[in-house]
Formats: sequence, structure tokens, C-alpha cells
Amino acid sequence: MSQEIGSLSVRAVRGSAIRDLLSVVDRPGVLSLAGGLPAPELLPTDRVARAVQAALTSPAALQYGVTTGALPLREVVHARESAKLGRDAGAVVITHGSQQALSLLAQALLDPGDVVIVEDPGYIGALQAFDTTRARVIGVPMDAGGMRVDELRPILERERIRIVHTVSNFHNPGGATLAEERRRELARLADEFGFWIIEDDPYGDLRFAGSTVPPVAAYSDRVLRLSSASKIVAPGLRVGWMHGDPAVLALVERLKQGADLCGSSLTQAIAAELLADSVWLDGHVAGIRSVYAERALALHAALIDAFGDRLRLTTPEGGMFVWGEFADGTRTSAPLAGAVDAGVAYVPGSAFAVQRDLGTALRLCFTTSSPDDLREAVRRLSTAL
Amino acid sequence: MSQEIGSLSVRAVRGSAIRDLLSVVDRPGVLSLAGGLPAPELLPTDRVARAVQAALTSPAALQYGVTTGALPLREVVHARESAKLGRDAGAVVITHGSQQALSLLAQALLDPGDVVIVEDPGYIGALQAFDTTRARVIGVPMDAGGMRVDELRPILERERIRIVHTVSNFHNPGGATLAEERRRELARLADEFGFWIIEDDPYGDLRFAGSTVPPVAAYSDRVLRLSSASKIVAPGLRVGWMHGDPAVLALVERLKQGADLCGSSLTQAIAAELLADSVWLDGHVAGIRSVYAERALALHAALIDAFGDRLRLTTPEGGMFVWGEFADGTRTSAPLAGAVDAGVAYVPGSAFAVQRDLGTALRLCFTTSSPDDLREAVRRLSTAL
Repeated sequence: MSQEIGSLSVRAVRGSAIRDLLSVVDRPGVLSLAGGLPAPELLPTDRVARAVQAALTSPAALQYGVTTGALPLREVVHARESAKLGRDAGAVVITHGSQQALSLLAQALLDPGDVVIVEDPGYIGALQAFDTTRARVIGVPMDAGGMRVDELRPILERERIRIVHTVSNFHNPGGATLAEERRRELARLADEFGFWIIEDDPYGDLRFAGSTVPPVAAYSDRVLRLSSASKIVAPGLRVGWMHGDPAVLALVERLKQGADLCGSSLTQAIAAELLADSVWLDGHVAGIRSVYAERALALHAALIDAFGDRLRLTTPEGGMFVWGEFADGTRTSAPLAGAVDAGVAYVPGSAFAVQRDLGTALRLCFTTSSPDDLREAVRRLSTAL
Repeated sequence: MSQEIGSLSVRAVRGSAIRDLLSVVDRPGVLSLAGGLPAPELLPTDRVARAVQAALTSPAALQYGVTTGALPLREVVHARESAKLGRDAGAVVITHGSQQALSLLAQALLDPGDVVIVEDPGYIGALQAFDTTRARVIGVPMDAGGMRVDELRPILERERIRIVHTVSNFHNPGGATLAEERRRELARLADEFGFWIIEDDPYGDLRFAGSTVPPVAAYSDRVLRLSSASKIVAPGLRVGWMHGDPAVLALVERLKQGADLCGSSLTQAIAAELLADSVWLDGHVAGIRSVYAERALALHAALIDAFGDRLRLTTPEGGMFVWGEFADGTRTSAPLAGAVDAGVAYVPGSAFAVQRDLGTALRLCFTTSSPDDLREAVRRLSTAL
């Protein structure tokens, strides 16, 4: 069959382990902490409905748009990102979710065999995008301060690196946030060695504890910064964006013509209105933060209660996930089936492994369960593990 | 700079000549027949507004969706396409416009250097998708019956072809429709030589003269058939689809995970409702056909009147374009600037050339101008050329 279809089936295209799992755990009675979705009850259906009615007063909302995205949306994204950086955010391209930004950047910057550095555990969407271009991926471990940037220099002195990808805030799956001094150092290394940093930041606005750290892009022009409306407004709009170096973004624009010609004028008009309505947006995001904070705290406290020192945990300060590693060598892959039978689901660490053995780790999502359900899920987990 | 950014700038990524042109001709006083947009006044803003209100009664419309597309949309597409084929349409994947289907199929089926056959003149979106995978593209000429399928066999006997791409109905830019006997022969050749046919059919429902021909996919299982809601509902939804061989579509699904994870649940819900509302849709598409028929006729008649035997024209029976080639050797690229000064714009044939010299050809779009404006545009054209 592989010969019949093409060469792809013999390539190392990575299946989404999460996705395969979700198809199993999405059944009645299972409390699933395996997903990665925003809380559905917080999705702003009424506000979107009002924005749609406004957009549809013009047929332009249903017509083809420009490849780089609707101008009002690019403008509000540029203003928001410039404010975060404390300087001009550069060129902006609106993408079909930030996954498309990853895919287009991989196509624009990588040839087969080029080397990319990612965090280990790694974000699966980025690994898929890099695998498709047949890049070679090297993982660098994380700790509570995010990527171990001190481990980069020996790699950089040994080989030519094209891209360092980082989920800088509330890492998926690792939970950690890249410490400020590491951001500065990473930026310095990019300038010194000439690689590109992809700063992938979908969760930065969802901080509910600790203090905000400036983006990596605040410290270097060699950062292509990605974010999206998915976690602060709604994933169903499929509105993401990237900003940074105009020459790279001009290449991305040409590739996007071949990839999908343009995005949806309708969902871009909705996103532009909602992002520009800062009074509404600030209140809405504050509401998400407050609900997620309560859930994260409930999960974290229940885990400490149930596992104590057996389980090393990230302290959730934002985002959607808690990452844990068993200090006593408890494996997490084999017991998953039993855990699902006991009515709880999680993602084993091995699903996110780049080079490390993450067989004693697991990722838990706190966004879509009530505090009571999270506590019950942990009770079931402590029986299964 | 190219070294700085990556290898892409030295690759043969094709700029969109149409797009560069449009940026020049979109100014007051110019009657532009250079575009390729559906008529904005026919975009169904009210019907979409009603569908959005229904969709937004559930937060699912704003949540992530499955990679292959929302089930109700896949079901209605499967039913419509099966009816066209007179048999089961196979697997269905919803794409971000049919441009994404082209891009994903190119990634799934092609390695660098693989050979693809397209019509000459070629559809620019397909050429961009194939160029990105660094395939080698061979053009086969068209006549009034579409692709000269009789010219395929010598090529197939000479080299291994992976894909033959055809815009089977009302070709963009060529205007012609692939004749029924050629469809059968093309399908026979695919079965004999083992290549894949991509049948790219965005315009098939827009027939306003002549009689419907069965899709190429009616004659072989080696056809991956593409279409979209862009020309019958609205491009701003960015809802396209492909159907056919389940193993190829499974590969496409995995690549789509890396490309953009999933489509917009919101615009897919809109498209599902509108495509399933066959009473409304049939009436709506009949309305588009009737308006386009009047415009096509006006343009065609005015061109015959102005140029007579000097200009060989396709007879428009559907779609959005008329293609002309000057029999007396009149070149079309150099006079474009003067034509724009005289208040009319078109796309020179050279923009669509694969291997042929199309320097005496031009593409004219009739969808977005009134009959009077089309007649005035031809008057200006006859002065400029």
C-alpha cells in the first residue's frame, strides 16, 4: 500500500498520541484530565453572536480576504503584541490557528536534515510540524524554570542549529515558564549563533499566579512570536498569528498562498472586533483566569494530598496543565488502561518524549473539570497508580 | 538575506501574478476583469446570519473540532458527491478551502523531483502547491474539449507520473470543460499506469449552458476529487473538501494535524446547515447561474463584436472565466499597463503558462461586473489591444 500511495507512509510522521487516547477516554463515567480544551462553558457564544451580526452587514465578511489576514485584525494584534514587547512587534501574519504558523515556519526555514531544538517534553503540534519537513529534532530538558538554556551552548558549538522552539509560558505539557534570565540568555545565543527562536505563546494571557515575564521577543529580533485567540476567545475561530522579522514573514505569506490562499474573513472579523473591545476582553480573560485558578489549585492540592513526595509537580501559575514525575519510579503508560477502567484518564509522559525517558511522568489538564471532579479524579488516580 | 532566512528564497516558489496585478488594478475608474471573485451582491449574508445564530446555541461551535471536519458536514458532502458520482464517494476530509486540499495532497503524494501533469494554461493555486514540494511539472495543452488527453500516453510511456491534475469543469483560466470521452480515457490511463488524478472541481455546479458531464471520479477509484463551498455559498467560510481513496485520505488527515490541527467548527456548522438545506441551496445556486449566464453572454458577445476572428474565444457554459487567444499574434503582457490607464484590466495568458507560450492569450472574469460594465470594458480593451 505504501508504494501505491506515496512515500509518506515510510516517513517519520508522528501520530498524535493524545488524539488516539482521547478517542478511548471520551466515554461516560470517565473523568478525563487527558484533554487540552478550553472550558466550553466559558466560550463567549453571546459576544460572538453580536460580532457576527455586525460583520454580516457587509458581504466582505463572506468574500476572499488577503493572504496576510484582515487589516483591522492585523492592526489590533500588532498593537497588543507591541505593548507586550515594549517596542514595535514587526510584521504580522494571521494564521489558521498557531499550528499553521508552526507549519509555515517549518516550511520556510527548514530543509530536510536541518536541526531544530525543542523542549523535552515537547509540544506535540510543533514536533508534528518539524517532522513533516524531515528536520532532525534535539530535545533539551526542562526544570521548574523552563528550558535548561545552559545546556544549549555545547549543542550550538557542536552543530548548526536553525531553530530553537520554546513554549515560553505555562508549557504544554511541562507546565513550567521560562525564567527571565534564561529568556535573555536564549536571545543572546540567537544573536551570537544566528538561529531563529520560535516563541510559541498561546497561554501567556492566562496567568493566575506569580508575575508576568517579558516575552523572549523583547530581547532579540531573531524571535518569531506566535499566539492565538484560541485560549482567550475561542479555538473554533481558528485565528492565530505570528509576528516578527518582515523578510521571514514575507516568505511565510508566499507559502500561505499555496497552503490555503487566505483565512476566513468571517472569523477574522469576529476576532478583530473582540480583541479590539478591550473592556470586554479584559473582563472575559479575567473570568477565565479566575475559574482556571480555582481548578488548578484544587488539582494541585489533591495531588499533593494523595501522592505526597512520590510525585514531583510543577506549581501551576497559569495555562491549562499540571505536569508530574513520579520520584519512586512508578511507570505511567502501562497503568493507563486500568486507570480508564477506574474512571480517570491522563496522558502518559512518554507521549511527549523527544529523547528523554519520560515513562514516569504524566500530564493532567485542569480546565474542563470542576474542583469536585478533579478531587474525585485524583482519588481514582491514586488507586490506579 | 537569503542565507540568513533559509533556503526557501532560492527555491522556485511561484509568486501569484494575479495577486501582484490586483494590487495595481484595484483603483477607481478601472473596470477590472482581472479578478476571480464571486459576485459580492450574491453572497448570502442573511442566510448565513440565521445559520450562525442556530450554531451558536451550542458552545461546540466555538470549540476545537476533529481533524477530518465536523461529522454533519462530512455527511452532507458525502451524500452530495455520491449523488454526482452515482456511487459511494469514499472517505471525506473537510479542508481549509480546496487550496488546502491541493497542498496536503501534494505533501502526501509527492517527493522532490516527482512528476506532475497539469493543464497548460494551468491553475495557479495548483502550480503553487506542487512547486512547494519541488515536484517537476509538465503541462499538457487544452482545446475546446479540455486537456488533450491523447497527448498523455507518450509522456506516461516515457516517465513515471505521480499525479495528473485537472480542473474538469469550466477551467480556470482556460474556460473549457473536459469532454466525457476524455474523462473515461483519463480514468483508464490512471488505472493502467497507476498515477493519481486530482479532479479539482470548484465550478461544476455553476453550469448555465450545455449539459452536465459525470465527474472523472465516476470512472476510476484513482481520483481524488476536490470541491468547495466557495463558489456556491461563500469563500469567506473557507470550507473545501476532498473525497476518494480512504488510505490517501488517512495520510491527508495526519498531515492536516501538523498543518492546522482542525478547521473552524463555526464555519463548518454554517456550511453543513446551508448545504443540507437543499431547497434554499438549489434556489440560491440557480440565482447565481442566472446572473453569471447574463454576464458571460454579454462579455462573449461584446468580444466577438469588438475583435471578430482576431480573438479565439472559449464559449462560456459555466464557471467564472472567458479565455481568449489572439489569432493575429497580438501580445497581451506589454499592453496591460496601457489598458489599465485606459480603464480596463485583465490577466495576460503568460501568468498561467506552464511550458506553452501563452503571450497572445488573456483571461477575463465576468462575475463581478454588470453587462453594461462588461461591454464598456470590452470597448476600452479594443482600444488598448
